[in-house]
Amino acid sequence: MAQPPPAEPGMPEDEVDTPALLIDLDALEHNLAAMQAALAPTGARLRAHAKTHKSPVIARLQAAHGAIGQCVQKVAEAEILAWGGVDDILVSNEVVAPRKLARLAALCRIARVAVCADDPSALPALEAAAEGAGTWLSVLVEVDVGAGRCGMPPGPPAVELAARIAASRHLRFGGLQAYHGSAQHQRRPEERAATLAAATEDTRRTLEQLRQRGLDCPIVGGAGTGTFPLEVATGLWTEIQAGSYVFMDADYARNESPPPFRQSLFVLSQVMSAPRGSGRAVLDAGHKAVPTDSGLPLVWNRPGLRYAGASDEHGLLLAEDAALPALGEKLRLVPGHCDPTVDRFDWYVAVRGGRVEALWPVAARGAMT
Amino acid sequence: MAQPPPAEPGMPEDEVDTPALLIDLDALEHNLAAMQAALAPTGARLRAHAKTHKSPVIARLQAAHGAIGQCVQKVAEAEILAWGGVDDILVSNEVVAPRKLARLAALCRIARVAVCADDPSALPALEAAAEGAGTWLSVLVEVDVGAGRCGMPPGPPAVELAARIAASRHLRFGGLQAYHGSAQHQRRPEERAATLAAATEDTRRTLEQLRQRGLDCPIVGGAGTGTFPLEVATGLWTEIQAGSYVFMDADYARNESPPPFRQSLFVLSQVMSAPRGSGRAVLDAGHKAVPTDSGLPLVWNRPGLRYAGASDEHGLLLAEDAALPALGEKLRLVPGHCDPTVDRFDWYVAVRGGRVEALWPVAARGAMT
Repeated sequence: MAQPPPAEPGMPEDEVDTPALLIDLDALEHNLAAMQAALAPTGARLRAHAKTHKSPVIARLQAAHGAIGQCVQKVAEAEILAWGGVDDILVSNEVVAPRKLARLAALCRIARVAVCADDPSALPALEAAAEGAGTWLSVLVEVDVGAGRCGMPPGPPAVELAARIAASRHLRFGGLQAYHGSAQHQRRPEERAATLAAATEDTRRTLEQLRQRGLDCPIVGGAGTGTFPLEVATGLWTEIQAGSYVFMDADYARNESPPPFRQSLFVLSQVMSAPRGSGRAVLDAGHKAVPTDSGLPLVWNRPGLRYAGASDEHGLLLAEDAALPALGEKLRLVPGHCDPTVDRFDWYVAVRGGRVEALWPVAARGAMT
Repeated sequence: MAQPPPAEPGMPEDEVDTPALLIDLDALEHNLAAMQAALAPTGARLRAHAKTHKSPVIARLQAAHGAIGQCVQKVAEAEILAWGGVDDILVSNEVVAPRKLARLAALCRIARVAVCADDPSALPALEAAAEGAGTWLSVLVEVDVGAGRCGMPPGPPAVELAARIAASRHLRFGGLQAYHGSAQHQRRPEERAATLAAATEDTRRTLEQLRQRGLDCPIVGGAGTGTFPLEVATGLWTEIQAGSYVFMDADYARNESPPPFRQSLFVLSQVMSAPRGSGRAVLDAGHKAVPTDSGLPLVWNRPGLRYAGASDEHGLLLAEDAALPALGEKLRLVPGHCDPTVDRFDWYVAVRGGRVEALWPVAARGAMT
């Protein structure tokens, strides 16, 4: 059961019911244009990551700013995007369950669909799903370029898997998936550069061996908001999979030399308790509203106020050289991590100049299968 | 938009699509009966906390095992329960927004409803909502018995607020809310006993002063799964607000002398990547499926396997003196914290003896306003 929207178009921001997921439209539009400007002079294209926004509406705005398609992590996200009009979708992740693969193959009727693989033993299920749907699937080989999560080792093992895909009747070799997630959040630019240098070498070597094997590699996908200028500069990556750039978050703000995007995503929260003389106030947004996997949220534009602790439904607010807000006052919080925060809400409340301009569903909220 | 159910009744557990939220019905029923048996010889009644389960179905099972009503933290949760047939609901939390209070007062037509207050300046909005709906609201005074979150100081400030409520035209003084949340998770029984001894003294003193003031106190509410025998033993608390006892989680299991309930809640997850020779496997449940605010999940009944790290959609699985599971294998995870985990899913998959027996909606999933 979806929750009803917490606002109506035209309403002042301060009347929005809390907790609510706000988008600052001016900042969002800045970010869309800034990414377009950053990639325009390069050969790299944007395949934006919908694991961040979970919304065909935002996918459409990204397409209007040059994105050639979307990435997702889950088949259920691919379904929501395809049903919402997105026609080029990469599942930048492995899918092994036959029921999931049948759903993915069914999407080929309405969208161009690709998926990743990192294990030869996964190929029969991919083939069976494509054959069962009377279609073919584009399969990218995920290469572990240092993140130590999924992926084939670079070089011969990845090339061997690509060859098996290319030789299959119902699969096509779509390219390489070469993503280093944790590099996005390494704090110092030198660390990020060193990590990416190693990932680049792995990718270059694998590409060279694919060429030697006579295998065409249409896509090299990867990169995120924290590192994409590095991948772009190599000339190897053809598709940039940044997601967070549309919203940003407190964790990206902690990077030295953070990416050139503005904070556009907030959780609006209300002071629901302000015990006299206690030196604290309590907000109605705890970690059910603002997940804390990447740290606590920040308080926006209120110097001296600190979100100091989260329980399920409460946030503890402390003041240092500042007055505590009064009971009923509303504050914007900057989420520690934009992706899981978006996934907590059914609605985006899009605001501009202090007024609600639009309501957009977080259509793929909870789409985990 | 709600997600479709990941299973059908009669299906073997191993065919359930992942990640999925499982209830082991035998364990759930054990827990329901164990709580009923624990409270039966005492004067305390169970007002189970629906912040844990978010389900009118489970509320009904609790009522069949003696619960006299439900607690919630949010008006939106109260709505889902009332619409689902629960007729006695306490919002064990402060509500200050007029729109929320109007919704709460509207529920008085179909349920007995109460709410907490901890600030005299909050009373006019409560009165206005009750008057506007042509009804009255029962208001409990929340007392800060040491948790340092919401609540009036014990003694005179709490009594003064109770007197103002009792003197109001549209409000009734419903009793005291005296809950110490963090005590539930203190590891050692002696720590929990010491914390509760102080909370008990605060509550006893406040009750005595209410009596001196001539104010009847129909309810003393509080206690949770980790401490309820202590509150019950005092004879002061009339309503026990335990929630987690129906499910349990990895964090409660870390208490010394953990409560006498069985683990009944799991997240079913599948191995989606098992890079050869890497010494790891990757599960399809990361912190979007199993929140990590109270620690990482445990792997159920698979000694030697450890869930060692969560990213958004991936869980890292390591093996110590055990074989790693194969690609496609499904494992049950014990969530670190049951409450936020339940809130990630649209459906409970209720299983018994390896088969799906029922699907129940997590009806108040995302009910945060």
